[in-house]
Amino acid sequence: MAAITLERILALQAAYIRCIDGNALESWPDFFHDPCLYVVTSAENHKNGFEGGIIYADTKGMLIDRIAALREANVYEKQSYRHILGLPNILKNGGDEAESETPFMVVRIMHDGGTSIFATGVYLDTYRVTGSELKFSKRLVVCDSSRVDTLMALPL
Amino acid sequence: MAAITLERILALQAAYIRCIDGNALESWPDFFHDPCLYVVTSAENHKNGFEGGIIYADTKGMLIDRIAALREANVYEKQSYRHILGLPNILKNGGDEAESETPFMVVRIMHDGGTSIFATGVYLDTYRVTGSELKFSKRLVVCDSSRVDTLMALPL
Amino acid sequence: MAAITLERILALQAAYIRCIDGNALESWPDFFHDPCLYVVTSAENHKNGFEGGIIYADTKGMLIDRIAALREANVYEKQSYRHILGLPNILKNGGDEAESETPFMVVRIMHDGGTSIFATGVYLDTYRVTGSELKFSKRLVVCDSSRVDTLMALPL
Repeated sequence: MAAITLERILALQAAYIRCIDGNALESWPDFFHDPCLYVVTSAENHKNGFEGGIIYADTKGMLIDRIAALREANVYEKQSYRHILGLPNILKNGGDEAESETPFMVVRIMHDGGTSIFATGVYLDTYRVTGSELKFSKRLVVCDSSRVDTLMALPL
Repeated sequence: MAAITLERILALQAAYIRCIDGNALESWPDFFHDPCLYVVTSAENHKNGFEGGIIYADTKGMLIDRIAALREANVYEKQSYRHILGLPNILKNGGDEAESETPFMVVRIMHDGGTSIFATGVYLDTYRVTGSELKFSKRLVVCDSSRVDTLMALPL
Repeated sequence: MAAITLERILALQAAYIRCIDGNALESWPDFFHDPCLYVVTSAENHKNGFEGGIIYADTKGMLIDRIAALREANVYEKQSYRHILGLPNILKNGGDEAESETPFMVVRIMHDGGTSIFATGVYLDTYRVTGSELKFSKRLVVCDSSRVDTLMALPL
């Protein structure tokens, strides 16, 4: 079967971060299949094979709940993010499924204008096409620093 | 009509920042049609619909004047920029025109070697092909932080 | 002869930084032809035409030695890198050789989780296809800041 094109993967990656950085959080869960796996963890935990993580969600409903909680907490009044992605490494691609590893950096901009690096790491992604739609069936966000947990707020 | 290819858009985006970061500023206005619209503004101003901005130019002549002023002020003796772009979101593409949104980060390197994040944000671009040339008819630079204005120097 | 495709160049660039940031340093020399040219230098030295650099290697053996020395020094216990690449400017492409200029930013993550910008600059690359393999025959790493030398450790 035909592989998923690089252009399509780039478009999905670009749309995902546009959704978060543009504060369209309610659309964020739509980037995932249901059930799915969305985990934010540290490189150290990932290396040691710990399954948990700072954030763990395996249904779309859990992602929706997370956004509702963020809206309740008014997180976006206080800060915004800017994701910059590197080029994806396509690790597997065949039929209706693909896997990639994509480096990211997230800069956080506080309400007073202060700007700093919030997180760096890689997205370990599994994509699946259902019907004609390409979505994440799995997104493992592996943060380089183990410090990130105490600051976690918006989705990565 | 055939759409503008992603590869062509990537090449234009890459060439634009190479021009600035490589201190070939005199070629910078050539990335724009004439008349054009080049505006640098903050996310807050943009959200509130303010038309103005930190920088506003709607002819190629104004862009040329801006570079002349920077050369006069010897800005490049004191600092340089390094732009890192994310992947563009192609929002519209048909015939000889396309629109995209591209995240950016700019790092500033001072003469003494000190390096810091200068700005983050998105480029809201409209491209048009005239003859065989792809150029910006509109580039709206929306900076995440409202602090950027007081430091503004080289083009973004 | 057919040019080297952009997709292939992107894949090589993405794989290169994955190798370093993922601590698979022993595979790093395999991205180069033998003989090759791998130089890390500053923008100022490069502009002034100095041939040397902070790091200079012109055989694959020298690259292998460098990694052995880093392993000896246990550098990875103390820090890791995260490279974020911008889009490559393809400057020449024909037959089995291509040249490009690619902006980069490297963030360093210390063992205690502290994260900061380590280096920014451009990769000036010459690629060559031998057999069916695309590798670097030349990679000139031009760092924007001249401060980078005293901190140099992992490959860029």
